[in-house]
Amino acid sequence: MEGKMKVAVMEGIGKMGYLERDIPVPEDDEVLVKLEYVGICGSDLHYYETGRMGDCIVEPPFVLGHEPAGVVVETGKNVTHLKPGDRVALEPGKTCGHCEFCRQGKYNLCPDVIFFATPPVNGVFQEYAAHEAGLCFKLPDNVDTMEGALIEPLAVGFHAAIEGGARIGQTAVITGAGCIGLVTLLALKAMGLTNIIVVDIMQNRLEKALELGATAVINGKEQDTVQEILRLTGGRGCDISFETAGTNITTEQLIRASRKGSNIVLVGYSSDGMLMMPSGLALDKELTFKTIFRYRHIYPMAIDAVARGKVNLKGIVTNVFDFDDIQHAMDASVKEKATIVKSVVKIC
Amino acid sequence: MEGKMKVAVMEGIGKMGYLERDIPVPEDDEVLVKLEYVGICGSDLHYYETGRMGDCIVEPPFVLGHEPAGVVVETGKNVTHLKPGDRVALEPGKTCGHCEFCRQGKYNLCPDVIFFATPPVNGVFQEYAAHEAGLCFKLPDNVDTMEGALIEPLAVGFHAAIEGGARIGQTAVITGAGCIGLVTLLALKAMGLTNIIVVDIMQNRLEKALELGATAVINGKEQDTVQEILRLTGGRGCDISFETAGTNITTEQLIRASRKGSNIVLVGYSSDGMLMMPSGLALDKELTFKTIFRYRHIYPMAIDAVARGKVNLKGIVTNVFDFDDIQHAMDASVKEKATIVKSVVKIC
Amino acid sequence: MEGKMKVAVMEGIGKMGYLERDIPVPEDDEVLVKLEYVGICGSDLHYYETGRMGDCIVEPPFVLGHEPAGVVVETGKNVTHLKPGDRVALEPGKTCGHCEFCRQGKYNLCPDVIFFATPPVNGVFQEYAAHEAGLCFKLPDNVDTMEGALIEPLAVGFHAAIEGGARIGQTAVITGAGCIGLVTLLALKAMGLTNIIVVDIMQNRLEKALELGATAVINGKEQDTVQEILRLTGGRGCDISFETAGTNITTEQLIRASRKGSNIVLVGYSSDGMLMMPSGLALDKELTFKTIFRYRHIYPMAIDAVARGKVNLKGIVTNVFDFDDIQHAMDASVKEKATIVKSVVKIC
Amino acid sequence: MEGKMKVAVMEGIGKMGYLERDIPVPEDDEVLVKLEYVGICGSDLHYYETGRMGDCIVEPPFVLGHEPAGVVVETGKNVTHLKPGDRVALEPGKTCGHCEFCRQGKYNLCPDVIFFATPPVNGVFQEYAAHEAGLCFKLPDNVDTMEGALIEPLAVGFHAAIEGGARIGQTAVITGAGCIGLVTLLALKAMGLTNIIVVDIMQNRLEKALELGATAVINGKEQDTVQEILRLTGGRGCDISFETAGTNITTEQLIRASRKGSNIVLVGYSSDGMLMMPSGLALDKELTFKTIFRYRHIYPMAIDAVARGKVNLKGIVTNVFDFDDIQHAMDASVKEKATIVKSVVKIC
Repeated sequence: MEGKMKVAVMEGIGKMGYLERDIPVPEDDEVLVKLEYVGICGSDLHYYETGRMGDCIVEPPFVLGHEPAGVVVETGKNVTHLKPGDRVALEPGKTCGHCEFCRQGKYNLCPDVIFFATPPVNGVFQEYAAHEAGLCFKLPDNVDTMEGALIEPLAVGFHAAIEGGARIGQTAVITGAGCIGLVTLLALKAMGLTNIIVVDIMQNRLEKALELGATAVINGKEQDTVQEILRLTGGRGCDISFETAGTNITTEQLIRASRKGSNIVLVGYSSDGMLMMPSGLALDKELTFKTIFRYRHIYPMAIDAVARGKVNLKGIVTNVFDFDDIQHAMDASVKEKATIVKSVVKIC
Repeated sequence: MEGKMKVAVMEGIGKMGYLERDIPVPEDDEVLVKLEYVGICGSDLHYYETGRMGDCIVEPPFVLGHEPAGVVVETGKNVTHLKPGDRVALEPGKTCGHCEFCRQGKYNLCPDVIFFATPPVNGVFQEYAAHEAGLCFKLPDNVDTMEGALIEPLAVGFHAAIEGGARIGQTAVITGAGCIGLVTLLALKAMGLTNIIVVDIMQNRLEKALELGATAVINGKEQDTVQEILRLTGGRGCDISFETAGTNITTEQLIRASRKGSNIVLVGYSSDGMLMMPSGLALDKELTFKTIFRYRHIYPMAIDAVARGKVNLKGIVTNVFDFDDIQHAMDASVKEKATIVKSVVKIC
Repeated sequence: MEGKMKVAVMEGIGKMGYLERDIPVPEDDEVLVKLEYVGICGSDLHYYETGRMGDCIVEPPFVLGHEPAGVVVETGKNVTHLKPGDRVALEPGKTCGHCEFCRQGKYNLCPDVIFFATPPVNGVFQEYAAHEAGLCFKLPDNVDTMEGALIEPLAVGFHAAIEGGARIGQTAVITGAGCIGLVTLLALKAMGLTNIIVVDIMQNRLEKALELGATAVINGKEQDTVQEILRLTGGRGCDISFETAGTNITTEQLIRASRKGSNIVLVGYSSDGMLMMPSGLALDKELTFKTIFRYRHIYPMAIDAVARGKVNLKGIVTNVFDFDDIQHAMDASVKEKATIVKSVVKIC
Repeated sequence: MEGKMKVAVMEGIGKMGYLERDIPVPEDDEVLVKLEYVGICGSDLHYYETGRMGDCIVEPPFVLGHEPAGVVVETGKNVTHLKPGDRVALEPGKTCGHCEFCRQGKYNLCPDVIFFATPPVNGVFQEYAAHEAGLCFKLPDNVDTMEGALIEPLAVGFHAAIEGGARIGQTAVITGAGCIGLVTLLALKAMGLTNIIVVDIMQNRLEKALELGATAVINGKEQDTVQEILRLTGGRGCDISFETAGTNITTEQLIRASRKGSNIVLVGYSSDGMLMMPSGLALDKELTFKTIFRYRHIYPMAIDAVARGKVNLKGIVTNVFDFDDIQHAMDASVKEKATIVKSVVKIC
């Protein structure tokens, strides 16, 4: 499909713009997707505000966005499982298939992964994307493309929940009720956990957590988080926890409020990449800290969970922006955290 | 068995003395053991130097020592599996048997454990001890009571190795070549690992590690530990690691030198109970940090490994002190770290 | 509480009667429970029809029934967590607490277990039972004692699902839609599985399975079970399966319909205690067969799942009989399998 | 490297012969290996005697042999980690890399695997083989090519031991002391197990097992296997077991002699592909049966274990035949089981 497409680019810190580029041509194993929705992730906002993350540095013009879904409009000649008109969610990382991690099934650790919107690889705030067909997952009729775009963060939540060893009967605590905290909540609920406590310091996020099914919420600004968790668990502490806020304080709270022998899943990055924790207490309790990185083998299951009504995925979205409005979308998402939890860009 | 026995007590920080006390009378489920050897643990030295560990505070006179072995001299009336003359290693923690941790098989996490030499519970630098028979493990003929005393630290090594998921084929790194680092080395070797790199800053300890079978050693003062591990592993990094030094530096070294997706077992306590680590890097690598606390269900297996010649347990001992010489034993163990790695007190 | 109570006894094969016995006196660690509902289990019916199971032989008069719930009427002096008036479900097996299995947390394997209605230990088709307080689990307000009685079979379903490694995203198959097949279905649904296929040869059971949320059912008499499973899974086969029918045919069907590398959980006993299977095919597929025996550490979680509305436990009950009608209850449950799936006896 | 090579072929049941064929030309990702040793596997003998295994039917002339090692003589242009002169062991199965099993790291379950000597794919009883370079593992200086050829069966032993959950401290039983039983013994010993009981009915095999380090052996013809295992384990039974004989009798013996809750690894195929077992007893004991198929991710570790002296791999070989003598090699291996345990063909 020849032609031009509109591409939103980061022109510099805090500055978005648009370019016109050729519509990409799919390779034999690829499909061309007309994008309908792309979510705005915390990492997009971080690049937008600071121009970098660790060693990944944005060179403008750079395309952000790695939570896409849309409609297949063209298929490469080797593609058999998709056809034009199919609506798909795009898993954003293309892996090598040959390294020891790929061979052992841990493809999320592939050192040669090509991942949307991770410099120098461009993202997909644009009208079309060509992508490996095996990474484009067909959406059932009752899952729309806005939900399709949100499969990406949901996959993080499921990966955290599964790798953390979550299972029915446990009492879980989640610190941080941003997008990742909320999708973790949704994943845990889908896996049968019925007792999930969410901690944050912003009231709008706590209300969102309650709306999505948290059993209880704690406002860390107003309440003693550790005492409150202990109170809510009859003194036992939590059986599993998920740290998505990326702070020393919340990590320490989880160490103090965890039952001996339990797992703490570290999901959130701290602002300076460092973490200080009371390790002596952790040792006394024989705690395990599992860090997680993205996800693997999750998309089909996550899509199924949405299709079956186990996950109210749209519930996390507080704001939908037009593609033409991307400067505002980014600025608002950065500044209005008291009201905005999760934004999605409607491409067309 | 009526009579008096000699008991070594900590009279204050840096000061040992002796008392005479009644020989204890075993309960129906207990045996009375005439002790032959008791090891000196790092925690004994810590109490001796500082008078406390976390919230556990020494009230003199206090008996240190929790690594005992000896000969059964009397048995309670319900005891059937031991008889006078049996040589035994004493597992030092008596647990409640009823709490959720005991019921789930994780008895090392029992909140009501009574553990030798953990204030306010006295230890066993003394001539006799009465102890639950089920915690007294008979030594085979070819395992002597000095080895019996060392089963306790060896159990820590095995627990760390097993909980950490060590298995044949992995390349392991151990930071810290004190007693716990060395017993971890011995445990890993017994489990079939053939590639074990040991890091320390004291040359005598590194030599001991080599003598006990380390594949390679790194002197962290003189070499770039991370680069050296990468060099020794052909750039892959280690598959599993054990942090026994309790420092930020060694923890960070392991995070940098670990292969993606691997486990780091945290065994060592830091001096202030806190740990600072590059969590962002850990997340990028999807590392897991397992802390461990003491051990569970290890004694029989550890004794068997010694009896079968899989573990050169005596090899870790650098100094044997007479019971009459306990002041010197403690002082030397604290001060002469350049030559002393592991001390044992010969009680009789 | 002194007095007499009515006890239903098996007087011989196919013959029930009643006796009057003293109301039991609770020990210090026990509570006395006035029973309200006791479920009829397949093993009760098996004893009733044949007088034995393996080496367990009924000596009349023998009391059947091991799925009880009721109201606490008296507490032993050491009991603190229960009080008269509390409604409780009784976990029917009292274990020794000392053997290696108890110590390792696998108390369901305790060789010295005392289990209701397993000869020579009597069951609880009677008005009162004294039972270890730690095995009496308080029911929340919204869980009634009929549901309380059914916690026992539900625990089998949860244990099978958990030990089998069930997790969200899998397609499961259950062969046999009797009580155990149905509680396994309920457990899997509670754990987030959305694709559960149930196989039986009795239409009423399949209808019950559909009513309780099976995604699809297969009548093994009328359909080719293997082909149908493959059709329903797009040729992939199932990811996990549960064999509750106890036949060679259903076991072979699961082996043929399983995806490579998957788990088959064997729950059902065959009539002669033997099983013939195509092991060569199982080896080619690297299948794992997990057998399960009763359950462990499940009651609190199962009660919570019912209380939270994750499990429609009453839905499995097709018939409630009066205590005075126990002969009919047993006879009907044996003979009218085309209409009766699960019976419960209302004691008072 | 142009030219002709000698190829041994099965011309019919019980009849070997030789053909001359072109030396294969390696693809870009392949290497050409001059073979030095190829082991004779039980499956080779089975094809030789019966012409088939399950649905795999030999069409003569067919090349048997899938346990090869030799010297690289040519490398495809994309090969960087090997060079002419390198001695290598060849992992015999080429997998697709794309199916769900390959993607999840379980490549041994790849439905599209191309495996030496599995009809219709020819094996390598021949002078040269071209093979995917990634499946050719370089041998260290102290591992010769006869050991290299034996890495294949050793990999089966390690896969069984690892998947079975073997670990130090366990008492293991192996039924069947043919090649696979013996390599399982070697693998278990390398993993630190010190108590390994081997059962067979042929005295020469039991002697070989003792020579290779079995703790005890049982002649199932002369002794009561179950009673003897119970006697040797002080009544406890074994903690893990490996069934390599493929018979109902040995499987039942393991079920009877297993400790409750333990794993039985099914490795051996029965002659008719069926297995009859006392499943009721297995359920009472909550046993797990793990079947295994070939191996995955084992070669590097197995080679390392041999190089480090943890495995006496040559010790399993009882007979070495010349390539020119292959008819005799096959006939003797089939008929003289009282003296031959494992044969290897020296190609050059």
